[in-house]
Amino acid sequence: MTDGEPEFRARLDAAAADTDALLDELLSEHREHGELQRPARLLEAMRYAALGGGKRLRPFLVLETSALFGVPRGHALRAGAALECVHCYSLVHDDLPAMDNDDLRRGQPTTHKAFDEATAILAGDALLTFAFDVLARDEVHPNAAVRVALIQALARAAGIGGMAGGQMLDLAAEGRFGPRRTPAAADIATLQAMKTGALIEYACRAGAMLGEAGTEAASALARYGRAIGEAFQIADDLIDLESDSVTAGKTTGKDAAAGKATLVATLGRDAARARLSTLTDEAALALGALPQDTSVLSAAARFIAGRRK
Amino acid sequence: MTDGEPEFRARLDAAAADTDALLDELLSEHREHGELQRPARLLEAMRYAALGGGKRLRPFLVLETSALFGVPRGHALRAGAALECVHCYSLVHDDLPAMDNDDLRRGQPTTHKAFDEATAILAGDALLTFAFDVLARDEVHPNAAVRVALIQALARAAGIGGMAGGQMLDLAAEGRFGPRRTPAAADIATLQAMKTGALIEYACRAGAMLGEAGTEAASALARYGRAIGEAFQIADDLIDLESDSVTAGKTTGKDAAAGKATLVATLGRDAARARLSTLTDEAALALGALPQDTSVLSAAARFIAGRRK
Repeated sequence: MTDGEPEFRARLDAAAADTDALLDELLSEHREHGELQRPARLLEAMRYAALGGGKRLRPFLVLETSALFGVPRGHALRAGAALECVHCYSLVHDDLPAMDNDDLRRGQPTTHKAFDEATAILAGDALLTFAFDVLARDEVHPNAAVRVALIQALARAAGIGGMAGGQMLDLAAEGRFGPRRTPAAADIATLQAMKTGALIEYACRAGAMLGEAGTEAASALARYGRAIGEAFQIADDLIDLESDSVTAGKTTGKDAAAGKATLVATLGRDAARARLSTLTDEAALALGALPQDTSVLSAAARFIAGRRK
Repeated sequence: MTDGEPEFRARLDAAAADTDALLDELLSEHREHGELQRPARLLEAMRYAALGGGKRLRPFLVLETSALFGVPRGHALRAGAALECVHCYSLVHDDLPAMDNDDLRRGQPTTHKAFDEATAILAGDALLTFAFDVLARDEVHPNAAVRVALIQALARAAGIGGMAGGQMLDLAAEGRFGPRRTPAAADIATLQAMKTGALIEYACRAGAMLGEAGTEAASALARYGRAIGEAFQIADDLIDLESDSVTAGKTTGKDAAAGKATLVATLGRDAARARLSTLTDEAALALGALPQDTSVLSAAARFIAGRRK
């Protein structure tokens, strides 16, 4: 197995460029069947939220896991774009004053700062809704049963038992709804597996679903997804603790200020770094169960664990 | 054709009872596959928003249009419950301080008043997401292609080209984003066809989709849905103008205070009442294209046009 680093970088960039181009096309003024209008300000806010840069890590993971099974890139790109709409909606809503009250995202004003709160709420709602419109299209997969499976898995990953539920647990851990109690490490792990992990795991499972892979391959990719999902969050918490806002492109130092429950705060930095290393090994082990060349996915795991922004 | 009024009332009540029971079951603590937790406060807020009464008009329309084609009631109930989740999410978000800032809904405190703003935002998000989880299930229809069609049509009806877009146009007409301009009657009709009409039209189209009906029947039900959707909004605007808060179960007189663009304000009450009568005729005409007994749906159209709360 090669190191895969240069190839990984090139493929991550290509995934980002192709996802941006597709989102640009999907979120155009062109009305789909049954739409009377696409109100200009709402469309502009959705585009602001969805086209504002970002590494497009989740679409990249959909593309790379799909490629293992020979899924046409166009299919995987569509599924990845739908997933990115869900990710971007969550950022818009999480940044709202009533939520995390963030002014800065990817180095730019957050959507409610660039527009206004009502527009940001509706843009998030519309992006979430749009994701399911996109996933339902023939261009994602010719087999409707596969599209339904993708839709249901995305709804579960994003809903009360996934991302939205995790955000709720996160606010609760801050003491929003009662006295603040320092959660146990296991509770933080659950919270983060829901808040951040679920969508990343979904991205990896999507390839197996699109490729109609067997249960063994699907389960290996789910394990890989869970490992890199947890690694992603730990790396994110380390960035918040150690990086400055300019490097990170968003307000940092907020977790400590808000008393956010993070594994880094609970375990300490050294233990968190050791956990990152374990998770990278776990990801590699999961990939080892697949006969295909998975060097790019291995490099992705190392990148996620080591990122600084 | 009979008057259908007593049967209509009985069937509307039965639809409400069965929808409530199903939503109660779906929104229980029981975790679905892949869900690590259903955070108690978020679940409670979702239940508060979704089980808070309401006529369940949209599920009723799904049930009745489905019954025309012999669709099993259990299938239609599931589709109706999913649609109701979308409707209830929209009420939660529309009531938020940054949106319409309403304290009262169905005679009870709105979700952000009963809980808090962050919880209300997440409960709305999670209800919207949950709708697609429910629609993707086998229990809605054995044919995945039918479920995908239902999902896509719901996403379109609720998204930028439908309900969310209509809400945006409504805020714009209030002068939120620039100088207030009195919109033309045609613009108000578009706004309301998107904001309120799209979900009601969807409810009527859902029966044809579940019943895999031919294009003629589907088109007749879509026409029926558009007519009653417009009638519903005009009746709603008349209630806001003429009813008191206790009767209506929500804050009234707000449209005039907010300078809301309504057809009643633009055309006047008499012309609005005449339009209601025309729409009831249009609905009956559309139903006339169907060979089935549609007396309950006719009664529904008259009820919608004549309702006072």
